[in-house]
Amino acid sequence: MATINENFLKLKAGYLFPEITRRILAHKEKNPDKKIISLGIGDITQPLPPAVITAMKEAVDDQAKEETLHGYGPEQGYDFLIDAIVENDYRARGVDIEANEIFISDGSKCDTGNIQEIFGTDNIIAITDPSYPVYVDSNVMAGRTGPANEAGQYEKIVYMPCTAENNFVPDLPERAVDIIYLCFPNNPTGAVVTKEILSDWVNFARENKAIILFDSAYEAYITDSTLPHSIYEIDGAKDVSIEFRSFSKTAGFTGVRCAFTVVPQQLKAFTKDGRMIEVNQLWHRRHCTKFNGASYISQRGAAAIYTAEGKKQTKKIIDIYLANARLICDSLTKLGYQIYGGQNAPYIWLKTPDGLSSWDFFDRLLTKVNIVSTPGSGFGPSGEGYLRLSAFAQPADVKEAMQRFARI
Amino acid sequence: MATINENFLKLKAGYLFPEITRRILAHKEKNPDKKIISLGIGDITQPLPPAVITAMKEAVDDQAKEETLHGYGPEQGYDFLIDAIVENDYRARGVDIEANEIFISDGSKCDTGNIQEIFGTDNIIAITDPSYPVYVDSNVMAGRTGPANEAGQYEKIVYMPCTAENNFVPDLPERAVDIIYLCFPNNPTGAVVTKEILSDWVNFARENKAIILFDSAYEAYITDSTLPHSIYEIDGAKDVSIEFRSFSKTAGFTGVRCAFTVVPQQLKAFTKDGRMIEVNQLWHRRHCTKFNGASYISQRGAAAIYTAEGKKQTKKIIDIYLANARLICDSLTKLGYQIYGGQNAPYIWLKTPDGLSSWDFFDRLLTKVNIVSTPGSGFGPSGEGYLRLSAFAQPADVKEAMQRFARI
Repeated sequence: MATINENFLKLKAGYLFPEITRRILAHKEKNPDKKIISLGIGDITQPLPPAVITAMKEAVDDQAKEETLHGYGPEQGYDFLIDAIVENDYRARGVDIEANEIFISDGSKCDTGNIQEIFGTDNIIAITDPSYPVYVDSNVMAGRTGPANEAGQYEKIVYMPCTAENNFVPDLPERAVDIIYLCFPNNPTGAVVTKEILSDWVNFARENKAIILFDSAYEAYITDSTLPHSIYEIDGAKDVSIEFRSFSKTAGFTGVRCAFTVVPQQLKAFTKDGRMIEVNQLWHRRHCTKFNGASYISQRGAAAIYTAEGKKQTKKIIDIYLANARLICDSLTKLGYQIYGGQNAPYIWLKTPDGLSSWDFFDRLLTKVNIVSTPGSGFGPSGEGYLRLSAFAQPADVKEAMQRFARI
Repeated sequence: MATINENFLKLKAGYLFPEITRRILAHKEKNPDKKIISLGIGDITQPLPPAVITAMKEAVDDQAKEETLHGYGPEQGYDFLIDAIVENDYRARGVDIEANEIFISDGSKCDTGNIQEIFGTDNIIAITDPSYPVYVDSNVMAGRTGPANEAGQYEKIVYMPCTAENNFVPDLPERAVDIIYLCFPNNPTGAVVTKEILSDWVNFARENKAIILFDSAYEAYITDSTLPHSIYEIDGAKDVSIEFRSFSKTAGFTGVRCAFTVVPQQLKAFTKDGRMIEVNQLWHRRHCTKFNGASYISQRGAAAIYTAEGKKQTKKIIDIYLANARLICDSLTKLGYQIYGGQNAPYIWLKTPDGLSSWDFFDRLLTKVNIVSTPGSGFGPSGEGYLRLSAFAQPADVKEAMQRFARI
């Protein structure tokens, strides 16, 4: 008799976005003539940089000729991309990362979801509240948690509240934990972390022989030169951290699919009897066994981001989103809203007015002024009473959305 | 203290292909002037069909314009591709598959590797010997096996020998098993299965409440009209089977990455206390939580395979590989080799001469006539004494390789 993985039954029903979609459709059905503006799901709206387009077309052409055909590539990715990453994302910031520490993939959702497989099921997982749901759900599926409580929090996970009081940067856990998920610039709160605070986390991990899973998918939005783009800018971080990067928000790759994960050679985890094991080798084995490389076309497109033209074009796109974020922050502050994030980050974290719940204010925005947002409570109980607004939208739409906010 | 998933330590060291690469490089270093012909790794050598190239270029162009930009797509894949699959791969063969039973992915390696996650770790797994290593390794990593023995076989897995005696189609297991991996046309043996024999398997699965994981990645190579392309051509199969399909070998997508998995709505698995659960819902949850959709460009390319032009062009490419297979079969038979497969399949399974081991004959072919093959023993102990030859090569190279064989 084929039995199921019963951990799946612990999962709370709705993934956040399907429920949002359902409410939008219901609203549209009743109001077919209204123009809805979405500041909801964090998907890019600007076309891809011309340098990327050109590179991908050339890559497609390569597939049309015997001499330039690319079949199976290295599972870890092509050197032309890995070398560009080593040079531009790391060496240029004074960080030494070797080519064999980088694993190209088809997305950070996959990487952050799959990474837990190489760790034991007995690890205690620390996750910020709110957080990107994949961190939690992938651990539930793997059996590292008990059932969920009323608030939707799972037994055994150590939740780290991120609130206005701590500037949405969690306090160090008061108990030992084994694996820690951090994301800065943060999704959903838009919070950033200084080198000093990140150092505290690295030290905590070192003291606890814990591992930090550092999601840096939004690092391209950092404009403050004092903020770290990579956790490896922190002394000692290579011994205790894995970093996730994505081209999705950097250069509009949400539909093209390319990302990467860095697993330093010196990063160790342990067997139950205390033997040290190289984590890089484990991830290499997992990656090569269950993944067959990212699309050659996507990788060629990603490499073009690192050319002089590509960098210029990418920056221009990011500046558009950052200008959107600024406009949202300025407008809503003027209207008396309490807002957070939106600087060095494409997300704005809005305190709902009048003590409304996240979903109630979501509904008010949708039904009154046809604006789609994301209820903060969908990212965890500490997100209750907040909304996430995304700067991934057309500037004209953002402008109009801010005028509509003034009418609520 | 972060602990590792100790199941990884059970894995036998080398994945097959890295060892082959190592030996090729060593040989090349000693013989830099020799032209090596590879009939080894099963990677495509023909450029992609022009219809696919055109569609992918248009898709790249779409990403350059705001109005046609495609960001995040549905995790399960775009309707334009799913509908083409439903119509052409299934309805055209008299099989009713619904759109929501199809999950587009970036490759069958991922799908066949990931599928086990939705099942309990206590299931007894039946795998053919020889087989594609991913089936075994992914279950080892998940903890469904004990350690490996000397022969490289893992405790708890039920191995089903495929030998000349049973035409490389396994006998039904003598004990109850829960999850069964089958692959026809087979990698590595090139064996095919008739509807009658596949019916026996479906009935066995029904009687045992087992699930068949049917890898049909090579169905495009079937020319015998009596053979099933899909397990769903068998009555009752939808209640007990998941099917994997790939565009890799059908249309040269090994570097482009697109595949799909079919999970029928009526397929059920069980909780330990006997409750029936829809497997489609579990895979949907897994797919949407840990995967963010295949590249839009790859999906557009895949959809072009189903156009009139695409079908014609694809068939032409497959005919080239099938002609290679025929040439290999005919030539080696004339030379007195015992060969299997190579009909309705791109792989030829060659019995090594003189009682040589797989690796010994591999080395002889490499060092004496500069031909790369794949040692059968790399696919499991029953593969010992065999080599896999691949028809994925340039026709001129296959011709030359056959002349070289005559000189051994």
